Amino acid sequence: MNTADNADFGLLSPATAGTAASRLTSDSQFIQAMLDVELAWVRVLADAGYAAAEVPAAVEAAASAQLYDAAGLAARAQGGGNPLIPLLADLRAAIKQSDAPAAAAAAAAVHKGATSQDIVDSALLLMAQRTVAAVSADLRTAAAALARLADAHRGTVTVARTLTQHSLPSTFGLKAANWLAGIGQAGVRLDEVAAELPLQWGGAAGTMAALTTLTDTGGGEGTPLELAARLASLLGLDEPVAPWQTNRLPVTALAAALADVLAAAGKVANDVLLLSRPEIGELSEPRAEGRGVSSAMPQKQNPVLSVLIRSAALAAPGQLAQIQAAAAGAVDERPDGSWHVEWQPLRELLRLAGGAAAKLAELAGGLVVHEDRMAANLALTGPLVVSEKIMAVAAPLLDGGVPGAGKPKVQALVNESLATGASLADLLRGSISRGQLSDEQLAALLDPTNYTGQSGELITRITSHYQEWSHS
Amino acid sequence: MNTADNADFGLLSPATAGTAASRLTSDSQFIQAMLDVELAWVRVLADAGYAAAEVPAAVEAAASAQLYDAAGLAARAQGGGNPLIPLLADLRAAIKQSDAPAAAAAAAAVHKGATSQDIVDSALLLMAQRTVAAVSADLRTAAAALARLADAHRGTVTVARTLTQHSLPSTFGLKAANWLAGIGQAGVRLDEVAAELPLQWGGAAGTMAALTTLTDTGGGEGTPLELAARLASLLGLDEPVAPWQTNRLPVTALAAALADVLAAAGKVANDVLLLSRPEIGELSEPRAEGRGVSSAMPQKQNPVLSVLIRSAALAAPGQLAQIQAAAAGAVDERPDGSWHVEWQPLRELLRLAGGAAAKLAELAGGLVVHEDRMAANLALTGPLVVSEKIMAVAAPLLDGGVPGAGKPKVQALVNESLATGASLADLLRGSISRGQLSDEQLAALLDPTNYTGQSGELITRITSHYQEWSHS
Amino acid sequence: MNTADNADFGLLSPATAGTAASRLTSDSQFIQAMLDVELAWVRVLADAGYAAAEVPAAVEAAASAQLYDAAGLAARAQGGGNPLIPLLADLRAAIKQSDAPAAAAAAAAVHKGATSQDIVDSALLLMAQRTVAAVSADLRTAAAALARLADAHRGTVTVARTLTQHSLPSTFGLKAANWLAGIGQAGVRLDEVAAELPLQWGGAAGTMAALTTLTDTGGGEGTPLELAARLASLLGLDEPVAPWQTNRLPVTALAAALADVLAAAGKVANDVLLLSRPEIGELSEPRAEGRGVSSAMPQKQNPVLSVLIRSAALAAPGQLAQIQAAAAGAVDERPDGSWHVEWQPLRELLRLAGGAAAKLAELAGGLVVHEDRMAANLALTGPLVVSEKIMAVAAPLLDGGVPGAGKPKVQALVNESLATGASLADLLRGSISRGQLSDEQLAALLDPTNYTGQSGELITRITSHYQEWSHS
Amino acid sequence: MNTADNADFGLLSPATAGTAASRLTSDSQFIQAMLDVELAWVRVLADAGYAAAEVPAAVEAAASAQLYDAAGLAARAQGGGNPLIPLLADLRAAIKQSDAPAAAAAAAAVHKGATSQDIVDSALLLMAQRTVAAVSADLRTAAAALARLADAHRGTVTVARTLTQHSLPSTFGLKAANWLAGIGQAGVRLDEVAAELPLQWGGAAGTMAALTTLTDTGGGEGTPLELAARLASLLGLDEPVAPWQTNRLPVTALAAALADVLAAAGKVANDVLLLSRPEIGELSEPRAEGRGVSSAMPQKQNPVLSVLIRSAALAAPGQLAQIQAAAAGAVDERPDGSWHVEWQPLRELLRLAGGAAAKLAELAGGLVVHEDRMAANLALTGPLVVSEKIMAVAAPLLDGGVPGAGKPKVQALVNESLATGASLADLLRGSISRGQLSDEQLAALLDPTNYTGQSGELITRITSHYQEWSHS
Repeated sequence: MNTADNADFGLLSPATAGTAASRLTSDSQFIQAMLDVELAWVRVLADAGYAAAEVPAAVEAAASAQLYDAAGLAARAQGGGNPLIPLLADLRAAIKQSDAPAAAAAAAAVHKGATSQDIVDSALLLMAQRTVAAVSADLRTAAAALARLADAHRGTVTVARTLTQHSLPSTFGLKAANWLAGIGQAGVRLDEVAAELPLQWGGAAGTMAALTTLTDTGGGEGTPLELAARLASLLGLDEPVAPWQTNRLPVTALAAALADVLAAAGKVANDVLLLSRPEIGELSEPRAEGRGVSSAMPQKQNPVLSVLIRSAALAAPGQLAQIQAAAAGAVDERPDGSWHVEWQPLRELLRLAGGAAAKLAELAGGLVVHEDRMAANLALTGPLVVSEKIMAVAAPLLDGGVPGAGKPKVQALVNESLATGASLADLLRGSISRGQLSDEQLAALLDPTNYTGQSGELITRITSHYQEWSHS
Repeated sequence: MNTADNADFGLLSPATAGTAASRLTSDSQFIQAMLDVELAWVRVLADAGYAAAEVPAAVEAAASAQLYDAAGLAARAQGGGNPLIPLLADLRAAIKQSDAPAAAAAAAAVHKGATSQDIVDSALLLMAQRTVAAVSADLRTAAAALARLADAHRGTVTVARTLTQHSLPSTFGLKAANWLAGIGQAGVRLDEVAAELPLQWGGAAGTMAALTTLTDTGGGEGTPLELAARLASLLGLDEPVAPWQTNRLPVTALAAALADVLAAAGKVANDVLLLSRPEIGELSEPRAEGRGVSSAMPQKQNPVLSVLIRSAALAAPGQLAQIQAAAAGAVDERPDGSWHVEWQPLRELLRLAGGAAAKLAELAGGLVVHEDRMAANLALTGPLVVSEKIMAVAAPLLDGGVPGAGKPKVQALVNESLATGASLADLLRGSISRGQLSDEQLAALLDPTNYTGQSGELITRITSHYQEWSHS
Repeated sequence: MNTADNADFGLLSPATAGTAASRLTSDSQFIQAMLDVELAWVRVLADAGYAAAEVPAAVEAAASAQLYDAAGLAARAQGGGNPLIPLLADLRAAIKQSDAPAAAAAAAAVHKGATSQDIVDSALLLMAQRTVAAVSADLRTAAAALARLADAHRGTVTVARTLTQHSLPSTFGLKAANWLAGIGQAGVRLDEVAAELPLQWGGAAGTMAALTTLTDTGGGEGTPLELAARLASLLGLDEPVAPWQTNRLPVTALAAALADVLAAAGKVANDVLLLSRPEIGELSEPRAEGRGVSSAMPQKQNPVLSVLIRSAALAAPGQLAQIQAAAAGAVDERPDGSWHVEWQPLRELLRLAGGAAAKLAELAGGLVVHEDRMAANLALTGPLVVSEKIMAVAAPLLDGGVPGAGKPKVQALVNESLATGASLADLLRGSISRGQLSDEQLAALLDPTNYTGQSGELITRITSHYQEWSHS
Repeated sequence: MNTADNADFGLLSPATAGTAASRLTSDSQFIQAMLDVELAWVRVLADAGYAAAEVPAAVEAAASAQLYDAAGLAARAQGGGNPLIPLLADLRAAIKQSDAPAAAAAAAAVHKGATSQDIVDSALLLMAQRTVAAVSADLRTAAAALARLADAHRGTVTVARTLTQHSLPSTFGLKAANWLAGIGQAGVRLDEVAAELPLQWGGAAGTMAALTTLTDTGGGEGTPLELAARLASLLGLDEPVAPWQTNRLPVTALAAALADVLAAAGKVANDVLLLSRPEIGELSEPRAEGRGVSSAMPQKQNPVLSVLIRSAALAAPGQLAQIQAAAAGAVDERPDGSWHVEWQPLRELLRLAGGAAAKLAELAGGLVVHEDRMAANLALTGPLVVSEKIMAVAAPLLDGGVPGAGKPKVQALVNESLATGASLADLLRGSISRGQLSDEQLAALLDPTNYTGQSGELITRITSHYQEWSHS
């Protein structure tokens, strides 16, 4: 069988295939992350005097993922239940076979005091941190584009829809700002969580026992916890209060933050999909060569960016639930299955968030806004779209001095307009004297562009709030 | 970047990596399944006179997955949102570039009247059917081994445990039979579902419109529904009542059946993991070179088969939920995201079930039963393990003619035995005369091997029930 | 605190509150189901001669849920972890306190040989069976209404939509038939599963040990398995191969069937919600007093039936996953938590399916179809909606004898029409001679009502297929 | 039907029934929370001069949940799809019917400028905040008890277990400290999230349009956003950047925090369930009257607190996934179903976390630690439990100057000991001279109590870290 025969490239995951996040989370990159942890550790040991000075160079020469057979490692991972065990064997063999001066010492020093969970957990979070950096950059690009849309469309009146029906006038700027609010909130939280991803370093039982033997007898300097702190610093991970082998909140927090990114991106996609339907036509996706084509219908232009973002968003809850269930099922000092079932959904969430963020950046940057269709759709409901305001303003004029008595009268006029198609303006004019409400006042009352409330102020609040983050 | 750089081989999924199910569901195999559907269709067309007789041969020459670049197809699938669109372009190009006699006609005939969903859905179920055959074979192997265990251990008395505590005596044979009942029930259902996987064939909108144009004008014989029926037959899929583009019950039923296989396998693994703990020691996994090793501790032998089966079982609910949510979210004649989000979890469930079934077959076939430890653990609770029976038999002897009055007296003796360590046999002897209950009767009453109820009969019922299936 | 203070009536579940399914699954009904199982069992015992003939009457007098305090039982269920334990205590007390002739014997006979899991599991499935009967009736009502819609709208041409965009013409009749196909498939399966819900009867460890003691010594007739079979028959439940205390496939199968009902109902609701948007306007929900009102906007009419059906459908995957995870986590002869976590989501699924089915019956029965809007929306895309057919028919006329050469020419005409707004009919007329394609033929080619494929045949197939079931 | 007939009291949820969290989230309490929001709002309006000064008193008299029929409101909530609509009608009617001085004005002022989502969302978070206060108090009680356990058992050596097998010695103090770390991390995060729960206040379309009309014309003082800020302050909720009607991250964040609490509590329960098995016997749950009883077996004492905590933990992932899916499915300015499907799982998570926290507080406070059994279990593996250390210390003594050459020799001795039962001490003594390792050194090497690494230091770090929080 050639390589491709047992490999996946994301053929069944068009939302993520071919994206940076997928590359940053490939088997190869995970091997590299494990090697990076092992290498950083011998550096810490050598710096502290617990390993010979030549050891890091000897390990470094063998610490490249290109040297290892990912497919073979994957299959051999069944033996011990995790991929570090076969990789460590191969790494040690590679070091020994090298002609590095300290080859034997380096092979012995590698992984000293560590357990496979230390490497796998730390490498997963290292890989996550690297991927989140790319995801976050795309989110900030998208956020900046959404802020521009929000600003540019402060005055673009459109209809707000609740439970699928027209409710009140709003602005497209506010819709874009609300998208930004979702993306911004999720993006800021993701950055926070990514900045606190902790090193795992506890040894076979989370007691740092082997490491204690080493520091007690190894002739170097530094306690186990100090060495772990230096390793965390070298890798750019957080120093935890204690090993967290069975306390999986660092993983659940990351998963939840990624799921929130996907939810926020999903909201944008859902709206774009709806608003780019032919009957609504308020938005179009940016076009690109070869995108949106149909295998059968030459006229069709599918909103594929949004379809794929939405599909990514729909995939998040199941993956998150799997990680949460794993955390809830932990037992002992390393669980018998719950630990293993975290890895793949965490990777999947990174990919989904990455795929969605990249597509969102493109979508937000190139979204085409059809103001004419927004106006036309708003006009469909006519003055009824401001009936809330009519109720507020006209009912007191019709109450004959009895608080509340005007409401049913306005409702009756609205019903008559709905039933007969009669102009609501005429009906109101017939009921309210010009002395109470001039023609100009009535026209202003019925004009939807006068009833967008705090839309502008809210746009300003939201865009200001995420300005710094989106430009960081 | 070389191939491995953006590929997955299952490094983070040791429960499935390297298994037959993973190979049978690789990107390459899915490409092959799509090609198989396209090829079968031109055969149907040629047989019916709607395509030239030479067309199938020309297509067949190009219908091998080896000819296509899976990674490239995966990346290009983003353009239209599914992998068939780029594959179809490459397939047509390959046919045209060939020197087959009917190359141009073949390129034109390929995919005639079909839409990409027809190919993707049918190929997914074709791939599923092929994989399920392997999964089912492993399940039947496991079932046969479990039946042998059940038979062999009809008389191996062990303690039953409920809510973690010792409840009553049972037999290890019944435990194995119950495992068989779970595997058998899930396996039979999986076979049923796999035998009914339907072809998808509806054209762009599920109306078979293009196909109707073809049969109306194409000069061959057979209605659209007849052609679809022949295609289903050729592929070994079921002929559906109608296209099911947005009725995803064939997919949810398959997913549920796979999840049930994983639940049944998980139950076995959970029990083996528990019973092979050092303090319990009633079972050991079969040993194999390189399996169960630890990266740090030379003495450790981990029950890795069960760990991986359990991890697979824990992954099922999230994948199933994703598929179910996709079905619930369907809209229109092809959904904008819900469709796309089904593919990956369905593949994942096939792999998880396949990995679990393969490991279960090995586990069941080589499970080591420690009867001595079963006896020792049973003895821990002593005669208290039959206190239910003591209650039933002794209470009436102590009730002084008042129905129910004996129960608290027996409870008091049990409590005394628990509190003081006094022999329950002695306490009973002290309360019940030999005339009521002879020493032999008392000894028999307290012997747990006399209190396994219908264990033997239940073993027979279960093993008989699944005998035919497991040997099919 | 008065009763209402710690009670739920479904205030946060408008999809299910106040429905028959909610009433049929209330705490009170579950208490009744447990009592029904206990009562049926003493009947079996008495019939077989293992209990006095007067016992059933004594138990029956106390076997009414009205006699017990649901809130108190719920709180006391914490003690042993299940609600049967306190109910059994109260039931026995009630029997003893009664003046029934065999009160003491009846109190002693109740629950003889059973364990709490026997009662809880059997009562859950009994409650499920009763609820499914109501759900299924509503589904059949809905199916009959959908079949009528499908028949009535065989000729109502509408646009099919894929990935949100117009694809091809179809008929509203086919859309309704596809809804029927989903509901029918799910409904038939639900009926199948409900007809096979098994009795649970295994005693404390699933060995029927206490029952064996009884049949060995109790003076009646019938083996434990025969008694269990009679109990199953009396309760209308299936006789299982063996107790299934830790093989939860009866529960997962029921949950999956209910989730499929919700998915099928969700599809209908999703379509209605979309198609009743003001800009599309092809459907309206039936109106009813007080339904669809807004708290603020007098003109609004919300499609509340569909909103609630959709919300029910969205709730299913999480509940199903919880049940599936519980099954996968089973261990021992009664699991330490996995068992307990099945009950509430199973009840929730029954309610959700019941709420959705009831609302669907009303929705399908009263759906208002706006044929004018269907025609108008179809016209939006103009002849481009049949561009697939134009491609098939016109390309060969333009290929100049080179197979495939006509396709790009047609595509160019389509593109020109899209870009310039020029009439596609005129563009085609300019490229194809009347000798190749007469004006009448061209007009017929461009008429969407001529391109609905097998719509009529598919409607007939689907409605015929579910005719018997929906009228059963 | 009497009240109980359609009510739930948690009969199928023993993990939560009868707890404070269940009471604090009852239908009645949610009605109260909605009334509290409406009342606070008229206070804000009156204070700002937008409503008469007498209005709040008139509303307050009617703002007690006791006055309303929860069952009726639940059923009527179907009409508009949410419970506020019928409650508002009843509230206005109650105010009008009162003899309060400003009854008519108050009825008109209630809900002015608000939409039902404003009230429902704010009331949900208000109810959540109140419930979280109780949950958090129980978590801190549990944490304090765990810290005491950790301190008290710094020197209680026990075996650490990984993948079910004995790995290394550790201390029970460290296990308790790790439980604390999980509870502490989750509890601190829950407090953070609860402190930031935002008010929802946007009006019908999230534009504050009606409110703007009021402030423009109503004669009072304060802008819409200022009024909203005052309302937030009055309710103890956060002032959001903007209305978050379709940005559901406040809800997902709360749900994730609650799920993490349940995961952390689940870990403790899983360990207690395992360690209180008869064969292990290292822990016992605190006993209480009526707890842990079996319906059939008089000797059984079930660890029911842990069973129920575990069952609660297992229920969290599905509920969380439902909330996450709802957020991902949002569309428009108020979604057609996604919004509605959040309420019930959020309530369920509050109850599950509350039930688990309360039981955990009791469990941690009364946990019985059997040091003798810990010692006995540790002894099962004998010196092999420190084989990692033996490897580290002895291998260099056996390497004959070749780095790494000693490892296989030690492994061979370990294997010999495992295979033959020969004393590892004797085998080592036979291979290593007393000059290299004295008898005392050998004995010290083999003593597990000398190999607990940084256990003490880690206990101190963890207990110090959560000291302040747990005593706050």
